[in-house]
Amino acid sequence: MRDFSADHRWLSLNTATVRRQGDLLEIIEACARHGIRAIDPWRDQVAAIGLERAARTLRDAGLELSGYCRGGMFTSDAAHRIEARDDNRRAVDEAKALGAPCVVLVVGGLPQYSRPGSVASKDIPAARAQVEEAIAEMMEYARDARMPLAIEPLHPAYAADRACVNTTRQALDICDRLDGGRTGALGVALDVYHIWWDVELLGQISRAGKGRLLAFHVCDWLVPTKDILNDRGMMGDGVIDIRSVRRAVEAEGFEGYCEIEIFSEDWWRKPIDEVLRTCIDRHRTVV
Amino acid sequence: MRDFSADHRWLSLNTATVRRQGDLLEIIEACARHGIRAIDPWRDQVAAIGLERAARTLRDAGLELSGYCRGGMFTSDAAHRIEARDDNRRAVDEAKALGAPCVVLVVGGLPQYSRPGSVASKDIPAARAQVEEAIAEMMEYARDARMPLAIEPLHPAYAADRACVNTTRQALDICDRLDGGRTGALGVALDVYHIWWDVELLGQISRAGKGRLLAFHVCDWLVPTKDILNDRGMMGDGVIDIRSVRRAVEAEGFEGYCEIEIFSEDWWRKPIDEVLRTCIDRHRTVV
Repeated sequence: MRDFSADHRWLSLNTATVRRQGDLLEIIEACARHGIRAIDPWRDQVAAIGLERAARTLRDAGLELSGYCRGGMFTSDAAHRIEARDDNRRAVDEAKALGAPCVVLVVGGLPQYSRPGSVASKDIPAARAQVEEAIAEMMEYARDARMPLAIEPLHPAYAADRACVNTTRQALDICDRLDGGRTGALGVALDVYHIWWDVELLGQISRAGKGRLLAFHVCDWLVPTKDILNDRGMMGDGVIDIRSVRRAVEAEGFEGYCEIEIFSEDWWRKPIDEVLRTCIDRHRTVV
Repeated sequence: MRDFSADHRWLSLNTATVRRQGDLLEIIEACARHGIRAIDPWRDQVAAIGLERAARTLRDAGLELSGYCRGGMFTSDAAHRIEARDDNRRAVDEAKALGAPCVVLVVGGLPQYSRPGSVASKDIPAARAQVEEAIAEMMEYARDARMPLAIEPLHPAYAADRACVNTTRQALDICDRLDGGRTGALGVALDVYHIWWDVELLGQISRAGKGRLLAFHVCDWLVPTKDILNDRGMMGDGVIDIRSVRRAVEAEGFEGYCEIEIFSEDWWRKPIDEVLRTCIDRHRTVV
């Protein structure tokens, strides 16, 4: 396993972690101040400053990307299907323009939450079928752009409203069905927050192998969790044995960034320099 | 599938659903008023009125039990192990005295939450190993009392603080290892709240079969969920396709009670008769 104790060469910042503290330009500046060498930006943050300006600023700052957040939200009623498809194609185009290594997919839950305005449904098997069909369709477009897609299994607490792919096994089953040849076009983005509880986790990481481990995210699970979406913890403040998961992905040959993604009302209220200093400290000591 | 539309013969009330509205005697009286024929009481509610009095009152009211809540919380440090073992033996004794068909097991998460005072740990694989060992030990005692044990897989959101058994597959794997002969001594209690999201659910229900389906609980998953413990929904108010799960358990031959267990600050604030009337109505229309 790589030794992170001496530097933060392999720290990437998911820009949602400080999305309240500034726009993407300010976040990039802050990363430069702290010697952070990679980020994973969100589409709304890119859109707010403009795609070309974002791409240029990233290049000028010498920042790499560890992913692009996010594509997906595939589940919709028939009336919203084309909108979802086109939206995801734009995500691929943007990721390409920014030089991202992959588009992270949050696949969507029930259609009324994923694509608001869609007819309400309780049919989660139908949602799953729609997700798989839509990923297959998106892959055709993404392949032409040589843009890998990374399915992110989300914690089962988000099954209804954000993603009906909720375990690493389920995500890898989709990879097997849609890219049995392991071409690299499809893989997974694993976030310890979503998967730490899973008795099958280490076995499924091994099943994924280097070729399908496209991204690795860290934060922590707090007890109690006050808000299921926005009370994620800074690494070390919760109950996840983060290092055991990193050890497993690196044992498969993963040598990419450890991306810090924290949705937290608490951390959003702190000054950006304090957040980044803490991220760097925890990256070196507990990730 | 049984037709519930005409009566509520197969409705059982988990007494936690109205635990703020009265003690166990008042809950039993309310059940009598509403023609509810079974309950699943909690140990603290039994203790509050005394075991013998509880048993006598249940008998006099002609109420059956659909389970006894709860045993478990097996995870602890060494100093709390005997306490946990003895506590679980008492749960078996009480269940026997009350005429319960099984003891529901909430197995515990990390030791510091399951048995407060235990040394803190982030080692969830160790917690799982301890759970399995403790269930094996409890089974010896429960077998002598002819009291089946029902492992309840809890939603992964409770992995840290309540149960590190989080899927039906995981619970059934334990059943296979500890009771491969399917003697009836060990099975599962399935609550739609905890398992509805699982892509493997229907297959695992089929794997369980009638012999291991010891209890079936219903409520609903609300979107948004404001509190991960105490914001469960009344059946029909959330996103779970409850009937599809009941169909699957009944297809295996399950013919027991559909037990309503709702932890909800909202429903705890309503008069007990309103809660029970609503339970009966939803049992007939959406369960």
